[in-house]
Amino acid sequence: MYFRSISLTQFRNYHTATLDLSPEGNIFFGTNGQGKTNLLEALHCLCVGRSPRGARDTEIIKQGCDFYRLSGVAFRKSGTRLDIELNFQKPNRKSLKINGQSQKAVSEFIGQLSVVSVSPEDIAITSGSPSYRRRYLDIALSQTHRSYLSALQEYQRILDQRNAILKEIQIKPEKRRTLRDQLLVWDQQFAQAGATVIEHRLNAVDFLSKKAHQMHQYVSADTENLQCRYIPAFSTDTTSLADAFYQTLRKQQEKDEVRGYTTLGPHRDDLRITLNGFDLRTYGSQGQLRTACISLRIAEAEWLAAKAQESPIMLLDEVFAELDLSRTHQLMELFQQYGQVFIATAREADFAKCPSSFQTFYIDQGHIKP
Amino acid sequence: MYFRSISLTQFRNYHTATLDLSPEGNIFFGTNGQGKTNLLEALHCLCVGRSPRGARDTEIIKQGCDFYRLSGVAFRKSGTRLDIELNFQKPNRKSLKINGQSQKAVSEFIGQLSVVSVSPEDIAITSGSPSYRRRYLDIALSQTHRSYLSALQEYQRILDQRNAILKEIQIKPEKRRTLRDQLLVWDQQFAQAGATVIEHRLNAVDFLSKKAHQMHQYVSADTENLQCRYIPAFSTDTTSLADAFYQTLRKQQEKDEVRGYTTLGPHRDDLRITLNGFDLRTYGSQGQLRTACISLRIAEAEWLAAKAQESPIMLLDEVFAELDLSRTHQLMELFQQYGQVFIATAREADFAKCPSSFQTFYIDQGHIKP
Repeated sequence: MYFRSISLTQFRNYHTATLDLSPEGNIFFGTNGQGKTNLLEALHCLCVGRSPRGARDTEIIKQGCDFYRLSGVAFRKSGTRLDIELNFQKPNRKSLKINGQSQKAVSEFIGQLSVVSVSPEDIAITSGSPSYRRRYLDIALSQTHRSYLSALQEYQRILDQRNAILKEIQIKPEKRRTLRDQLLVWDQQFAQAGATVIEHRLNAVDFLSKKAHQMHQYVSADTENLQCRYIPAFSTDTTSLADAFYQTLRKQQEKDEVRGYTTLGPHRDDLRITLNGFDLRTYGSQGQLRTACISLRIAEAEWLAAKAQESPIMLLDEVFAELDLSRTHQLMELFQQYGQVFIATAREADFAKCPSSFQTFYIDQGHIKP
Repeated sequence: MYFRSISLTQFRNYHTATLDLSPEGNIFFGTNGQGKTNLLEALHCLCVGRSPRGARDTEIIKQGCDFYRLSGVAFRKSGTRLDIELNFQKPNRKSLKINGQSQKAVSEFIGQLSVVSVSPEDIAITSGSPSYRRRYLDIALSQTHRSYLSALQEYQRILDQRNAILKEIQIKPEKRRTLRDQLLVWDQQFAQAGATVIEHRLNAVDFLSKKAHQMHQYVSADTENLQCRYIPAFSTDTTSLADAFYQTLRKQQEKDEVRGYTTLGPHRDDLRITLNGFDLRTYGSQGQLRTACISLRIAEAEWLAAKAQESPIMLLDEVFAELDLSRTHQLMELFQQYGQVFIATAREADFAKCPSSFQTFYIDQGHIKP
C-alpha cells in the first residue's frame, strides 16, 4: 500500500498543503518546530482515522479554525485505488469517506490501511511501564484481528464492572454476600474474554519476538541478543487458558476485595524483554533501548505485512537521533526493504546518500518547499 | 567545582577505569551500549551519593561482582580539594568518605557538590505527567535548601498518615466520627508543611521560569517564548499559604473521604509550561519539547550556581540528538559558559569543532582509550 498524494486543510500548523509522493520513500527536512511530525501525523490519521498519540481532534485543528480536512489518494499492491477523506468539524462531528462513500464508524476502518509509526516517544516501550508494552501489542493486534479488538473491548467492559463491584465490597462490607454472587456471574465471561486476549497476545509475541530478535541482531551487527516473552499471571500448562484464568481469579478474590480492584489479568500482564540475557529496561543503554524499540516496530511491520499480504506504510520520526553510524546505516538498509517510507528529520546530513527514487520536501513554518 | 580525576571499580560495565579530566570539558565518544552513560552516572553518584535515574545499588554493580567503588578528586572554586570515595557492598552496605572521613549518612552529603544531568529521559519533564515536573523542582530545591528537603519529607510522612485515615473512613464508615477527629489533629501540621513546600516552589519557579525563558529564546534564535507557572490548588491572595491550604483541605474533606486519598496539595500540583502562549505538552513539536527541557535544565544550573556561588558540573547525554544545526550550535555556545561539562555522544561528527581545552575519550566495551 502506498500514498500517491495527500492534502491537508487547517491541520495543525498547516493552512493548506498538497504533496505528490514517491511510492518508495519521502523525506521531510526542516528545523525544529516547523511541522515535519504533523505531516506524519496526517498520514497516520488517514490510515487509522485518529492521531497516533491519542491527541484529541480539537487539538489537531489549526489554531483559530473550526474544522480540519485530510484527503489522500492511495493504491493497494493489487492496483486498487482508494480515495480517502477525513473531516472533523467542531465540536465533535467526524466523518470518513472512502471512494466517495461515507463510512459508518471510523473504527470500522481500522485495519484497512496498515501503518507503523516509529517515533521518539517509542522509547517508552522499552524503558517505560508495562502499559506501553501492552499498548504496542494491542495496536499491532487490533490492526490485524477484528476479533482481538472485540475481545479486548469486551474484557475492558467487564473489568470496569468487576472493579465497580470490588470497590463496593470495600466500601459496604455488609453487602459482601450479594456482591460476591454478582462477581460469580461475571467471572466466567471475564475469564473467557481475558483468555481470548491472552491467546492472541501469545501468538503475536511468538512471531514478534522472533522477528525483533533478527532485526536487532542485524542492526547491532550480531553483538546483541534480544528476546521477548509474554507471561500470563497464571500457569497454563495443564488446563485451558480460560479455566486457568477463572481458577486463579477465584483464588485471588479475597486479595482483590481488599484492594478494591482486579489484581490480575491481561490488563496487568507484561512483555518481558531481555538483551544478552539481562533485563533490557534495567540494564540497557539508551542506544540499546532505542534500537530495541525500532526492532520491535519493524517486527510489527512484518506482522502487518504477513497478515495483510502487503507492507504497511512506515512513518519514521527522528529515528536515528541517538544511534551510532553503524546502526544508522544498517537501519537505513532495512527500511528500504519495506513498502513506502516517510522520514522526518532535522538533520539533512544523515540522509545525504538516500536513494534517488526518494522524494524530498523542505518544511518551513507550515509551508512545503520542493 | 570540577573533577580532576575519577576512578571506577566494578561499576556497571567497567572492571576498573581511571580518567584524568579537563576542568573545562570532557567528551565521551563511542558506539551504542559501550558505557558512555555509565561514566556520567558514576560522576552523578559521586556528587549526590546515588544514581540519577533511581537505579538500585545492586543494579549498578558489575555483573557477577559483589561490590562497587567510585572515587574522585574534585576542587572547589576556592581551591579546596575534596577526595570523595563511595563504596557499596552487597547486600546493602554503603559508605561515603570525604577527605578520608566517613560521612554519617549519604543524604547528608546532598548539596555539597552540585550537579545537573541533561539526559534523553528528560523529555518526560515537558511531555510527561506532572510528577516529572514536580520531580524537576524537587531536585533543584533539595540541592540548595535543606529546609525544603525536610519540609518535603515531613509533608510526605503526614500525607501517608492522612491517606491511611481516609482509606479507613472509606472501609469502616461506622468509625467515621473518631477518624475525622484524627484528621483534624493532622491537618494543621499538614497544611504547614505543604505551605512550606509550595512557598519554596513558587520562589524557585519565579527564578527558573525567567532563566528558562531567556535560554529558550537564545536557543530558538528569538522565535519562541517559553513561560512556566506554578499554580497551587487554592487561591493565595487574601491569606497566608498555610491558612489557605488548611481551609481548602477542610472544604474538600468529604471529597477526600469518598476517594480515599488526599486530592489536593503540592503532591498533586503542576508546573504549567507554555510556548508562544500555547500549552507546550499538547502543541509542542518533539524538537520544541526537547529544547524546553534543556532550557529548564540550564535554568536549574543557574539556580544552583546562584545558591552555591559556583557552577555545578553538567552531564550532557546525547543532548543534541533531535535538534537542528542552528539549535545545536547555540546550545554548544551556551554550555561553554558554565563550569565543567561532560558530554556523551555516539556522533563524533557533531563535536568536530569542540574547544581545544576539551579532553576526549573513546569508550569501547567498558574500556577507555585516549
